[in-house]
Amino acid sequence: MRARAPASTANLGPGFDALAIALNLYVQVEVEPAAEFVIRSEGEGAGTCDDTTHLAARVVKRVLGHDRVAIMVRSQIPVARGLGSSAALAVAAAAAAGAEDPFAVGAEVDGHAENAAASAMGGLVTAGTTDGHPYAVHLALSDSLAFVVIVPDHSLATADARRVLPGTVSREDATFNLGRMGLLLAGLTDPSVLRTEATADRLHQDARTALFPEAPQLLDGLVQAGALASCWSGAGPSLLGITTKLDAAHVRMGSERALHATGLPGRVLLLQADLAGVVSGDEATWPP
Amino acid sequence: MRARAPASTANLGPGFDALAIALNLYVQVEVEPAAEFVIRSEGEGAGTCDDTTHLAARVVKRVLGHDRVAIMVRSQIPVARGLGSSAALAVAAAAAAGAEDPFAVGAEVDGHAENAAASAMGGLVTAGTTDGHPYAVHLALSDSLAFVVIVPDHSLATADARRVLPGTVSREDATFNLGRMGLLLAGLTDPSVLRTEATADRLHQDARTALFPEAPQLLDGLVQAGALASCWSGAGPSLLGITTKLDAAHVRMGSERALHATGLPGRVLLLQADLAGVVSGDEATWPP
Repeated sequence: MRARAPASTANLGPGFDALAIALNLYVQVEVEPAAEFVIRSEGEGAGTCDDTTHLAARVVKRVLGHDRVAIMVRSQIPVARGLGSSAALAVAAAAAAGAEDPFAVGAEVDGHAENAAASAMGGLVTAGTTDGHPYAVHLALSDSLAFVVIVPDHSLATADARRVLPGTVSREDATFNLGRMGLLLAGLTDPSVLRTEATADRLHQDARTALFPEAPQLLDGLVQAGALASCWSGAGPSLLGITTKLDAAHVRMGSERALHATGLPGRVLLLQADLAGVVSGDEATWPP
Repeated sequence: MRARAPASTANLGPGFDALAIALNLYVQVEVEPAAEFVIRSEGEGAGTCDDTTHLAARVVKRVLGHDRVAIMVRSQIPVARGLGSSAALAVAAAAAAGAEDPFAVGAEVDGHAENAAASAMGGLVTAGTTDGHPYAVHLALSDSLAFVVIVPDHSLATADARRVLPGTVSREDATFNLGRMGLLLAGLTDPSVLRTEATADRLHQDARTALFPEAPQLLDGLVQAGALASCWSGAGPSLLGITTKLDAAHVRMGSERALHATGLPGRVLLLQADLAGVVSGDEATWPP
């Protein structure tokens, strides 16, 4: 059995821990019966922990109840860059192992329901838990949008990025994010009303800037390059520019210049929304 | 000149100060040149302040720069019940006086951009201010929904309802509302995914219950009667049940029983979304 799941970009500015969009970078997991456990990996994140502690191995064992399997993991998703690589891997591994609800497994193992939902369902999603049960639903996403992602070479662990966040916020700031999230969702449905202010946030981005001081300059660079709006991708350090497909190549070039100006090593990716989510069997071709 | 604007229900649970839906209760304002200022009013709120301090008088004077006008106000919108009566009146008065942007005038005078936006544009909206300028955009709203509103006879001033709210909230609660707002917007687009948890809120409803102890019982009563979800309407005391049109009559009956069980005087209205927003001239007929 094999399955393939897309990367995802979460938070999207105001939608902290609530929103994510699936992006067309993929991870594929193949699971075959074997006399004893073996795992191999290729591509992004390959070779870092090819043993039973590998996330794919833990997910497969959880689903099957044993680990007499040979697992092959192939990934295009940069690890620890805020692109949901672990949620995508968990969802793909769950599907490859035959899980009935790969989203639920991915959300529980990875802990980020919105990333797991995007990897499982594709498109723009909102997800979370009610009474301990994960839920995930689609929200409308215009097909005229593209995504320019600045991916610095340095990683940022989500746990560290979360530790810098204060435990309380002002009511005003909480309300601010609700308003901007409404504006953002309107703009993702209809890009003609998408504006820079739609990704404004007061709950996480500013605090995280301490971990990545060049972020504001790069976020501004994305907009200067023509992106309609920009924000952190997940817990960073990747930064997301939301643009029309028409302007995307131009935004990518301008963003490369902005990255170069900071002197930071990294790359700029031009990505599209993935609308399929996790796919299995013959659909889960590689390369995607 | 005359204009007519719909009532609105704001907040919708998690979307505190961010979301509103226009409802088919109306206020009409007629403005005619006159030798000296005169104002008359009929219907809801009539006769409470028929002088130059009347909100309609202040708005008309602001738009025209003088008050040599005869103003007639006719309203179906209960006052100080959380149904956006003042925002609707401000928008209708601004339009009747010939304002270029009745929403902007209404938002500035009334202070509740989301109510003014719903009254001006109709449908489901999100609104606020960026850099001091009001904005308002539509969000998708399914045409299969109806709204059952419990309107107690007692009023609740928005200022009082706001005074009980604490100045800070936990990050967890702020994030909770973002997640539920995503779920709610998905459910308002597609009622098949609308669930009771979508209107859960941790930013305002609980604190406001001190001002209206029967509210939780009535909110529960709306859901028990068949509403998909329920929440405070604006700053209350009206309570909103979101239901399918198919179930609406049934939900209304059950809600009347729930209101009766509390012993509180009041009424239950079965309303539809207004999709037109403010209309002027020949369109602004009365009765609506």
